[in-house]
Amino acid sequence: ADAAAMAAARQRQARLTKPPGSLGALEDLSVRLAGIAGVCPPPLPEPAALAIFAGDHGVHAAGVTPWPQEVTGQMVANFLAGGAVVNAFARQVGAAVTVVDVGVAGPLPAAPDLRDLRVRPGTGNLLTGPAMSRDEAVQALAAGITVAGELCDGGARILLCGDMGIANTTPSAALVAAFTGTAPGAVTGRGTGVDDATYARKVEVVAAALARHRPDPADPVGVLAAVGGLEHAALAGYLLAAAARRVPVVVDGVIAAAAALAAAALAPAAVDAMVAGHLSVEPGAGVALAHLGLAPVLDLGLRLGEGTGAVLALPVVAAAVRALREVATFDSAGVTEK
Amino acid sequence: ADAAAMAAARQRQARLTKPPGSLGALEDLSVRLAGIAGVCPPPLPEPAALAIFAGDHGVHAAGVTPWPQEVTGQMVANFLAGGAVVNAFARQVGAAVTVVDVGVAGPLPAAPDLRDLRVRPGTGNLLTGPAMSRDEAVQALAAGITVAGELCDGGARILLCGDMGIANTTPSAALVAAFTGTAPGAVTGRGTGVDDATYARKVEVVAAALARHRPDPADPVGVLAAVGGLEHAALAGYLLAAAARRVPVVVDGVIAAAAALAAAALAPAAVDAMVAGHLSVEPGAGVALAHLGLAPVLDLGLRLGEGTGAVLALPVVAAAVRALREVATFDSAGVTEK
Repeated sequence: ADAAAMAAARQRQARLTKPPGSLGALEDLSVRLAGIAGVCPPPLPEPAALAIFAGDHGVHAAGVTPWPQEVTGQMVANFLAGGAVVNAFARQVGAAVTVVDVGVAGPLPAAPDLRDLRVRPGTGNLLTGPAMSRDEAVQALAAGITVAGELCDGGARILLCGDMGIANTTPSAALVAAFTGTAPGAVTGRGTGVDDATYARKVEVVAAALARHRPDPADPVGVLAAVGGLEHAALAGYLLAAAARRVPVVVDGVIAAAAALAAAALAPAAVDAMVAGHLSVEPGAGVALAHLGLAPVLDLGLRLGEGTGAVLALPVVAAAVRALREVATFDSAGVTEK
Repeated sequence: ADAAAMAAARQRQARLTKPPGSLGALEDLSVRLAGIAGVCPPPLPEPAALAIFAGDHGVHAAGVTPWPQEVTGQMVANFLAGGAVVNAFARQVGAAVTVVDVGVAGPLPAAPDLRDLRVRPGTGNLLTGPAMSRDEAVQALAAGITVAGELCDGGARILLCGDMGIANTTPSAALVAAFTGTAPGAVTGRGTGVDDATYARKVEVVAAALARHRPDPADPVGVLAAVGGLEHAALAGYLLAAAARRVPVVVDGVIAAAAALAAAALAPAAVDAMVAGHLSVEPGAGVALAHLGLAPVLDLGLRLGEGTGAVLALPVVAAAVRALREVATFDSAGVTEK
């Protein structure tokens, strides 16, 4: 991040026609956005682009969710038809939605709006072997980098993280545990709302996967390959590419937060470009954000994924930028200071 | 609120293509909005209208703030010029801004966009007498009712509460203490950021005002007249009129929350129409919202007023409505249920 732009943003916040500090979290956020852009005030984060990376998970066979695996593909169709929650939220905030297949298991309907970057039809079962090869993990990373580049080249000034993948909170928990050293029970959640027996099974699966693979957080590609998902690897690439282009990128829930840990392990400075959109109910999300030092913008009890929390945070992020860009100073407005 | 519309909204939430409960606070919010409108799905809350009620306070003479009283009028000019934080935020979310003088102390520049409903030029000092007469409190209530009616007649489908008044966190604390029976020290905050000595003085002033007037929460007009402000009374009327028209109204920080207590004391059912936009840093705001049973949408450490927190909450409120209006059901989208 650009220290001079951040210092200029802090100084400008102090001159705006409001009591110092009265914008709370938005002041820090505006300073970070100036640091990302390398200029004060930073550009308005418009237009915004959301990429939803979809993939399936071999660990589905271990009984970690009551939802059938074909729902991943059905929800991809729902996104393309504009019928999912994230589509409705994206219409509210004016974000464009791109759906990317990086690893759905079954066939998908041909659709002009679907980006086909499928690396393989779902991961392997991380309980019995690696989720994918290192090569496949790198291919998925590259898919995310490609999509981020295309969206930025298309004019996007902010990127939003989205995901779809039945069972993907299980590899998310494994990734958070691996990168933060936290116990499986403290990072595994109920995902879409599993019962007590399935929850206990999930924690056991995460613990068994970590015991089997002993993923080394100093080898992020190896961690992704062993216990990750194709959408996690793609999101990690997407986050890295956004940071490389100095475009802010909004992290969503536990899937994106787990991917953010991988991105940060690959390039620590990438965290500078990340904004935590919200605090998911999934415990791994909070653990990951704390590890990254990111304060979530929203806390609405969401646990849907798709990018819903990132999308909802967008107007607040934009408002933080507008404060720096548009608000009068004491001098310019002729307002007396205390 | 309409119980049938709320039940229909709950049922519809359960059929949308998402895990039950995964939208957290937005599910309850959508149910409440259906209850307010009396129909499921409720209408989109667009266009949105923010009214900023401005007034001055005789208690300013007691040294409860370092800001000069003339800043109230200067900020009114800033709002009219579009240069304040709330203007920038309103542009972000697409809300129209109306500025209403219900009791600024000094002369204001003539401006076509300024609504002049001034009841008196600032209140009296609540330390030495009533802030205003009962008649004046009723006039200010009527001003708020008038403005809400005009905005709704002009097409607004949601109203947002805004305020401006140097020293107005002091009467807010007195109102919250009077209506909730909470000790002055627990509801008085640092407002725009006062030092320890001024803070101690504020708490003393609130305590002395309550001891002098012994306001009776069963007589809300009497409470407003004794220890309130003209913008508080106007906001109470605005909230009541919104509820009467079944239009949702977003409460901002401690000034609007104190006014909401007065509105609720006058007509308990008015709370049904209220949405708590955010949790202000001012402790009185949280006490008031808890008393009203309202859960804040945002928690961003704001303490600016102007309506900033209400405006920032608007996209989330609209998104909650869009979930009910626009999201496909399992049946319509052909998505398999668990």
